[in-house]
Parts: sequence; structure tokens; C-alpha cells
Amino acid sequence: MYKVKVFVTLKESVIDPEGAAATKELKKSDFPEVENVRVGKYIELTIDKTENVEKAVHDMCQNLLVNTEVEDYRFEIEEAAAK
Amino acid sequence: MYKVKVFVTLKESVIDPEGAAATKELKKSDFPEVENVRVGKYIELTIDKTENVEKAVHDMCQNLLVNTEVEDYRFEIEEAAAK
Repeated sequence: MYKVKVFVTLKESVIDPEGAAATKELKKSDFPEVENVRVGKYIELTIDKTENVEKAVHDMCQNLLVNTEVEDYRFEIEEAAAK
Repeated sequence: MYKVKVFVTLKESVIDPEGAAATKELKKSDFPEVENVRVGKYIELTIDKTENVEKAVHDMCQNLLVNTEVEDYRFEIEEAAAK
């Protein structure tokens, strides 16, 4: 059993309206020192698989979880105790 | 200058329709070994501040970035080179 943490971020060149709104709101509130905010996704998966976990996660990201036109991703795989 | 990575996750007790849809879709596709998917947010902030960064990030999360009724958060602070 593995726990996988996937971090999905918008590519640098892609406009992030949600991040821009958060930056503006934070600056207006008590946090003028905030320079930039980018909002992405954080996906936690549990997988009951023992072989080729890394390849499987790449495939899942590319086929379903990530829009690779506009998003980048990276992930970490941790062994998890079976339930 | 600091770079802060904030991980926002739905509380365990909260239903995650987006994660459930992803689980179902992955199982139906080539990945029957996927047990569970939870979808949260991954927020990157850059802050031009030198003191009390940790407290400031907690305040930002609690006041604006996180819905603490249904979401948990944790964060990592890294020193970043000034631009």
C-alpha cells in the first residue's frame, strides 16, 4: 500500500486568476508584504499496488488528474501500512 | 524573502465529491488498484517579510486562504533569494 502526494501547479506562463485574487485580498487586508500567490491542487492517493507505482502515477496524472497543457506536476510516494 | 508552501486538505469527516469522482474514474480506467483520492489545494506564496513569518502565514490561512470549518492546513517556509 502506498500513499502518493501529487502537487499540481499552473505553468509559470499561465495566468492564475484565483492566485491574483488572493494576492490582492491579502495585500488589502493585513498583509501588504505578500508578493505573489499561486493556487494549485494537492492530491492524495492511496494505491494498493506493489510494482511500477511511479509509472502508474505518471500515467494517472497525464491521463486524468492533470491538464498538462497548462499544469505541471510532481509527486512523492510513501509506503503506507496496509489497513 | 520567503517562499511558503501551504497544503490545504478537506477534514477526514468531510465528503470530497471531486476526489470520489477521480477515484471512480481511475478505477474504471487502467487503475483498479486506486483505493482513495482526496483533492485539496496547494498554495505557493512569496512574502517579503523578515519577522513573524510563521504567525503571518497562520493568520492568512485562518482569515482568507482556508475554510477552517471543513479544511485543515499545514505549511512549509523556505528562505528564497530576493529578486
